[in-house]
Amino acid sequence: MRNVTKDNITDVFKSYMDAGMDPRTRELMASLVQHLHDFARETNLTHDEWRKGIAFLEGCAAVETDDRHEFVLASDILGLSSLVDMLHSRSDATSSSVLGPFHVSGAPPLAVGGDMKRDFGGPLLLAEGVIRDTDGNPIAGAEIDIWQTAPNGLYASQDEEQDKFSFHGLMTVGDDGRYAFTTVKPVEYTVPTDGPAGDFLRACGRHPWRPSHLHYIVKAPGYRTLVTEIFPDDDPYLDQDTVFGVRDDLVMTYHKKSASEFPEGMVLSGTITEPFLSVKFDVTLAKI
Amino acid sequence: MRNVTKDNITDVFKSYMDAGMDPRTRELMASLVQHLHDFARETNLTHDEWRKGIAFLEGCAAVETDDRHEFVLASDILGLSSLVDMLHSRSDATSSSVLGPFHVSGAPPLAVGGDMKRDFGGPLLLAEGVIRDTDGNPIAGAEIDIWQTAPNGLYASQDEEQDKFSFHGLMTVGDDGRYAFTTVKPVEYTVPTDGPAGDFLRACGRHPWRPSHLHYIVKAPGYRTLVTEIFPDDDPYLDQDTVFGVRDDLVMTYHKKSASEFPEGMVLSGTITEPFLSVKFDVTLAKI
Repeated sequence: MRNVTKDNITDVFKSYMDAGMDPRTRELMASLVQHLHDFARETNLTHDEWRKGIAFLEGCAAVETDDRHEFVLASDILGLSSLVDMLHSRSDATSSSVLGPFHVSGAPPLAVGGDMKRDFGGPLLLAEGVIRDTDGNPIAGAEIDIWQTAPNGLYASQDEEQDKFSFHGLMTVGDDGRYAFTTVKPVEYTVPTDGPAGDFLRACGRHPWRPSHLHYIVKAPGYRTLVTEIFPDDDPYLDQDTVFGVRDDLVMTYHKKSASEFPEGMVLSGTITEPFLSVKFDVTLAKI
Repeated sequence: MRNVTKDNITDVFKSYMDAGMDPRTRELMASLVQHLHDFARETNLTHDEWRKGIAFLEGCAAVETDDRHEFVLASDILGLSSLVDMLHSRSDATSSSVLGPFHVSGAPPLAVGGDMKRDFGGPLLLAEGVIRDTDGNPIAGAEIDIWQTAPNGLYASQDEEQDKFSFHGLMTVGDDGRYAFTTVKPVEYTVPTDGPAGDFLRACGRHPWRPSHLHYIVKAPGYRTLVTEIFPDDDPYLDQDTVFGVRDDLVMTYHKKSASEFPEGMVLSGTITEPFLSVKFDVTLAKI
């Protein structure tokens, strides 16, 4: 098409795609560009606004590192990450929630009953539950990748005071499907606001807070991998999570218990003298 | 909203925006996110596809430099850059066309009648015309920022063999509004295909070629700045410019002329012994 116009350019784009290309890629590209062009036409997008959009992407690029994933964060605060999660959540399994930008690979093994709190201050939390299939049977050998912030609200990768894998652990459950670990009670925290995502939130008059949570990735052969989070039911940000991650079935009560109720078989068993918090959260995985 | 769903998340996003925010920013964000979410819902975007999208952006970030603007190139091959140009083109002025990723600031001055070809091989081209307002009057003192590829199809910033500003020049016209310069005939070339934009073109079965062109940015106080290109009417890629830049009024004939027809008043006047090419292209600027 020699004379491209604002009205025919979307069709021209589609006509450029080769008939032999992968059909799913064609479907995605056609929809993406239709929406991108409709956005520009409907808003009469100006050159200055286009330049601000390019500057936003270039700004994300400037702060992107192996440990900081600003494009993922941008997707999170736009609701895209949560939407993709929800499009593929199974109604018969535990809801998925956002991965977030702070997952790191290679977390050290954490035995069932292990402790991640170590010498950090803050309330002790015992988290436990069973990994089951949709028939309610335990999944032997399932793996949980666990991560959370330290009591200062920072993940290890954000915080020079922490070891690389502090508050990261990889647990493999036994035949009973049970996981259990002690940690510090997570705190609510803000997503990083010193980059373009922070500028975006400020431009929208939005706060950067997330309700406190534990992150899990739960895997087992033959089952769909679940990326999820567990929220306490008394968190002030449950109703306005800045990355749209809260689902009803992921909101749990943290029960306060006396030291004498601390169970056997944990690394910290026999050492507890103060009240602690306890949360039970069973996970259901759907078959592939 | 505590329980976010795939059906309410777009409204939740809109509800997070503060009532006091800039109204135009609100309009843009609401439309952008509506289209982004609709794209994901309509295509049932999977996690793997989302990850490929993030990897595309991270891949652009990895090759982005001060001289290579992969996000701009991505916008170009998606047709967004051309669409924004066309949305703001004035019917009574010369059409705008894509800026492209290779404009650099700080081009050296080029006098009216100057030469950019220097010792480079290839056909000599004389380009000239008049900068006028919409009433047809010359605009004294208008400025043209000119750039193009060398005969090897590379811009200076892509090519270690060239000086930083080779085939870049900044011309200020006199009271008659006339510009004129000699250069080498531009060649058709491919956009860079060694980055994510190239992967995108291959995935779509698209070629990476642009028809040959000269780039101009034309500026004058009180007038809208024009970013445009001039294409020869015999180029094989006019009908399928990979960045959607061709407009009918930007397609010109290159006339072949004998050496004796070379005009006076040019830096190369008196030195021409071979036939040369000539293109006349007048530019009309709209008032602000």
